[in-house]
Amino acid sequence: MNIAIIGLGLIGGSIAKDLSSQLNVHVIGVDLNELHQKQALELGLVHRLMDLDEAISACKIIIIAVPVDKIEQLLPTVLTKIDDDVTAIDVGSTKAEICRIISNHPKRNRFVASHPLAGTEFSGTMAALKGLFQGKKNIICESEKTDVDALEISLKIFESLGLTTSFMSAEEHDKHLAYVSHLSHVSSFMLGLTVLDIEQDEKQIFELAGTGFASTVRLAKSNPKTWSAIFDKNKTYVLEALDSYILHLQHFRDHIAAQDTSATEQLMARSNEIKRILK
Amino acid sequence: MNIAIIGLGLIGGSIAKDLSSQLNVHVIGVDLNELHQKQALELGLVHRLMDLDEAISACKIIIIAVPVDKIEQLLPTVLTKIDDDVTAIDVGSTKAEICRIISNHPKRNRFVASHPLAGTEFSGTMAALKGLFQGKKNIICESEKTDVDALEISLKIFESLGLTTSFMSAEEHDKHLAYVSHLSHVSSFMLGLTVLDIEQDEKQIFELAGTGFASTVRLAKSNPKTWSAIFDKNKTYVLEALDSYILHLQHFRDHIAAQDTSATEQLMARSNEIKRILK
Repeated sequence: MNIAIIGLGLIGGSIAKDLSSQLNVHVIGVDLNELHQKQALELGLVHRLMDLDEAISACKIIIIAVPVDKIEQLLPTVLTKIDDDVTAIDVGSTKAEICRIISNHPKRNRFVASHPLAGTEFSGTMAALKGLFQGKKNIICESEKTDVDALEISLKIFESLGLTTSFMSAEEHDKHLAYVSHLSHVSSFMLGLTVLDIEQDEKQIFELAGTGFASTVRLAKSNPKTWSAIFDKNKTYVLEALDSYILHLQHFRDHIAAQDTSATEQLMARSNEIKRILK
Repeated sequence: MNIAIIGLGLIGGSIAKDLSSQLNVHVIGVDLNELHQKQALELGLVHRLMDLDEAISACKIIIIAVPVDKIEQLLPTVLTKIDDDVTAIDVGSTKAEICRIISNHPKRNRFVASHPLAGTEFSGTMAALKGLFQGKKNIICESEKTDVDALEISLKIFESLGLTTSFMSAEEHDKHLAYVSHLSHVSSFMLGLTVLDIEQDEKQIFELAGTGFASTVRLAKSNPKTWSAIFDKNKTYVLEALDSYILHLQHFRDHIAAQDTSATEQLMARSNEIKRILK
């Protein structure tokens, strides 16, 4: 079976790495970046490289793993070019706008809108990891608009990567991810920036950084291009989550300013409930 | 050598655990909480328990490891009661207000204002860890106000715990810690609260939480009493850091709202510089 993977960064490269080690799978890599092409071959992520049109002709499965703004540009073209028995799967971190853009496409039924919930703060082909998806969750949105055979083959592929799939609407996906993933990234990026900015006056400040800071700011190492696209494509819910976060911070700030320690203590005690979720 | 440790929580308990395994060290525990007393004996953290006055009579070294608001209440009493050859060390996370409160005390010269930069998100006697301080940094403030012999014995103790000590003013300490530790805690506590609040409407939201969220929200499990005191005692610098953080978030928010992806990308690229600090 030939599988094309378009975009050989962290996610596409990791999918390629796992699939290329499976029997009877021939992985075709597509990437405009020549360095990524070279690295993908050297790391053995893909069996060969092709350009987009060649790959579309050669494969019944096309996995699109480019940044979410690029998915929007690429997906309609891919759907237009594929035959009726080809399945196109995207693995982007936002879903509503992507689904909206191809909602009236004549080949909408060949498309599987998915999001494997995995990643690291690193990016690029060299960051590809074997087993990245093992034990993780995958979301498929609007499955009712996808042909059963396309859905079935996608589920098999995700299962072979170690993912367990659940189903929800694209809006529900985007709202939830805004809170449990995208907001964490904004929070971390801006924490990094706040401390870097004060560092201009206080040179040795990082001498004192401990493991707590490291953990909270880890996501600030993530790829800016990937994340500017995600925040933009999930603007409505990211803003909703971020505004709520800013309000919570301001509220807490005011209690500190008023030296109301019983109020800050109470709010933190409520936040402690997060232990229930993070075992 | 008898060493008294007042307060047998995460920090005091971990100091006790390390010291009590050293030859010729007899660790006396002091804690008002009966459960902590019982646990400290059962876990072998201390050799015996005493009340405060007994411990002060029996020991030439007194380590105060209670929350920072309690240090302010306790420290003047301890200094008043000790002989001229006794050394009192505090290990609180804020330093300026503690130093201010005893600045005119006749036994100021017997006091060592210190802060071992170590901890976990857990608290209480049961959270005490052997080797918690190994390879970590310790700060001593206003060392010029401490007698040389008191400083020397304190440095030996910290070194035996695996800590490397540096020196700075109490103001400098509090400002730096506000940025690289206290702000991370506020950010994490409020992230937890923001997501818990939305969960009331969106029950299954945590199903989608990944490792990124877990890392960013980890500190929200920390002890509310400990942290409400720290935020209060370091109010000036915590508010400075927090206000700067909120401004950065609002600024970023406005760029997302304006769909200015090149601005968000640029800010995140600057934040990426955090890689320099976090190897």
